[in-house]
Amino acid sequence: MTSIREVAKLAGVSPATVSRVMNGTANVNEEKKKRVEAAIKETGFQPNELARALYKKSSKMIGMIVPDIENPFFSELAKAVEDTAYQNGYRILLCSSGGDEEKEAVNIQMFNQLRVDGIVVMTNCAETGKVLADCPIPVVLVDRKLDGFKENAFIESDNYRGGFMAAEYLAKCGCKNIVCMKEPNGYSSGRRRYEGYLDVCKNYNLKEQSVDCRYNYESGLRAAEEILKKYPEVDGVVAGNDIVAMSVYKVFTRHGKKIPQEVQLVGFDDVGFGELFIPELTTIHQPIKEMGHLAAEIILKAVNGEPYEKKNVFDVKLIERETTKSNRNL
Amino acid sequence: MTSIREVAKLAGVSPATVSRVMNGTANVNEEKKKRVEAAIKETGFQPNELARALYKKSSKMIGMIVPDIENPFFSELAKAVEDTAYQNGYRILLCSSGGDEEKEAVNIQMFNQLRVDGIVVMTNCAETGKVLADCPIPVVLVDRKLDGFKENAFIESDNYRGGFMAAEYLAKCGCKNIVCMKEPNGYSSGRRRYEGYLDVCKNYNLKEQSVDCRYNYESGLRAAEEILKKYPEVDGVVAGNDIVAMSVYKVFTRHGKKIPQEVQLVGFDDVGFGELFIPELTTIHQPIKEMGHLAAEIILKAVNGEPYEKKNVFDVKLIERETTKSNRNL
Repeated sequence: MTSIREVAKLAGVSPATVSRVMNGTANVNEEKKKRVEAAIKETGFQPNELARALYKKSSKMIGMIVPDIENPFFSELAKAVEDTAYQNGYRILLCSSGGDEEKEAVNIQMFNQLRVDGIVVMTNCAETGKVLADCPIPVVLVDRKLDGFKENAFIESDNYRGGFMAAEYLAKCGCKNIVCMKEPNGYSSGRRRYEGYLDVCKNYNLKEQSVDCRYNYESGLRAAEEILKKYPEVDGVVAGNDIVAMSVYKVFTRHGKKIPQEVQLVGFDDVGFGELFIPELTTIHQPIKEMGHLAAEIILKAVNGEPYEKKNVFDVKLIERETTKSNRNL
Repeated sequence: MTSIREVAKLAGVSPATVSRVMNGTANVNEEKKKRVEAAIKETGFQPNELARALYKKSSKMIGMIVPDIENPFFSELAKAVEDTAYQNGYRILLCSSGGDEEKEAVNIQMFNQLRVDGIVVMTNCAETGKVLADCPIPVVLVDRKLDGFKENAFIESDNYRGGFMAAEYLAKCGCKNIVCMKEPNGYSSGRRRYEGYLDVCKNYNLKEQSVDCRYNYESGLRAAEEILKKYPEVDGVVAGNDIVAMSVYKVFTRHGKKIPQEVQLVGFDDVGFGELFIPELTTIHQPIKEMGHLAAEIILKAVNGEPYEKKNVFDVKLIERETTKSNRNL
């Protein structure tokens, strides 16, 4: 590989001059500049990004931690962050942690040492908050708040409102036994949705009925079986997300429960992929793309010293499709 | 941030001695070693990975390019590569390129400059082959061959056999008008599957009937509509992958075609996620996890100078489920 010294020698200038030409950091006489550019071209010299990052302020890289890339909510989010970053000349270092605290810590350490310009994190690992607290670079949390950690910015959708709307819609569609699938690990998103559900139970004088369920389909399949055993009277389900709602549909249908005739079902997220499912899911729409774009924009603003909102809450909306009866005639 | 000089000063040794202790590159007298270790602990010194990578042979990082992280086949593959890498102390830098040649080139350049130990690539961009040709590090291609590029190793499943088995099974189940959904961009995987399909047409004296369809669900929805227009007699479909098969199911069902009674359908991949679908997909199983594990293992072997297979073809198998009639009584 060509070194900066060889370029300098060929151009008859000092290595520092080559560096100045490449970085545009100081004026270099026009004739020398041309010689350097010719020498760079002739040797095929590529500046070593590592060496450059040691001296330059920005590495033009953003680190990103997602808990589970197989969940379409996160793969869509990651794609949106990447789109905006890439359009602005930034690259993404993506880590799918599987919720493993050690893996998150190792990756954040790597991001730090590679001098990324900022980190976008979706996690609920308390230990990760401690690791992030030592980061001298901007951190944007998306979807999940971390107790005790002071992020630079936080982006979420209105999860309380989402949980409330899902449960209230079921109540308005005539459900008397609404079961909420509750995220068991205390994620802020799940907690807020559950609070929304609880308030609907109070308002409509319904019994609180819930099962624990993580945000993946394996957990959804198990939890759906549990609902049928624990609450045989169930006539409405607030699912943790769309994937979980599909799991409920599968298990209930296999047990002969008709959806929406006997049990009505509302998902969460409105992932693009849901379009394939029959029947189409009634769900709570989160503006996934906008959330991802904003995460990247905030890192860019932070890098450039521009002001940005610290707390960003997006509106959600209920999308009526085929897993609920219409409430139009109620 | 603490520098190596501060550690050296506190320990009363030279920075070079600190470096030797940290890297274990040369013998350091036991008493000095203890002083250095105490100073590292006291200052909380973390070696700068960037600076270290400049001098050390291995960065303990593997770069990975996938075309579309929203396709479960690739997210499962990426996860498998990462699992094996992580268990061996390596970290993954993941890039989802969306098939964008420029993005792939920029990321491979970054991988190079960050001195990753190897690159795992799933792509069909011809230009990417040229960029990879300049890489001085091991490159493993997975699923897709690159014309004119000499990779260190290639991993695929037996796509010809997969296409053949899917079409032959449909023929044995009584289909007379089998339509193949053909990948239009010339991916080696798609080409081979189509060749398998063609040979079945010859053997069973069936007409070749195909539509173009990419490996995502949006394309699947469009192509399914096209099948119904172009081949109204269709009674069997070899889908490009499971996601595309789900799209076909959706469109055909909406048009009143009964699956499997009127049209039988075979997917490809056997993604975990497919479990959610009703009816369950008959499909060609690829050993996705094993393929991903092997990709990481080959990079590790290459780094350590151990021998490895250059060409690795995994067997596929047909999984009979609910989108085909059984051929047991035929």
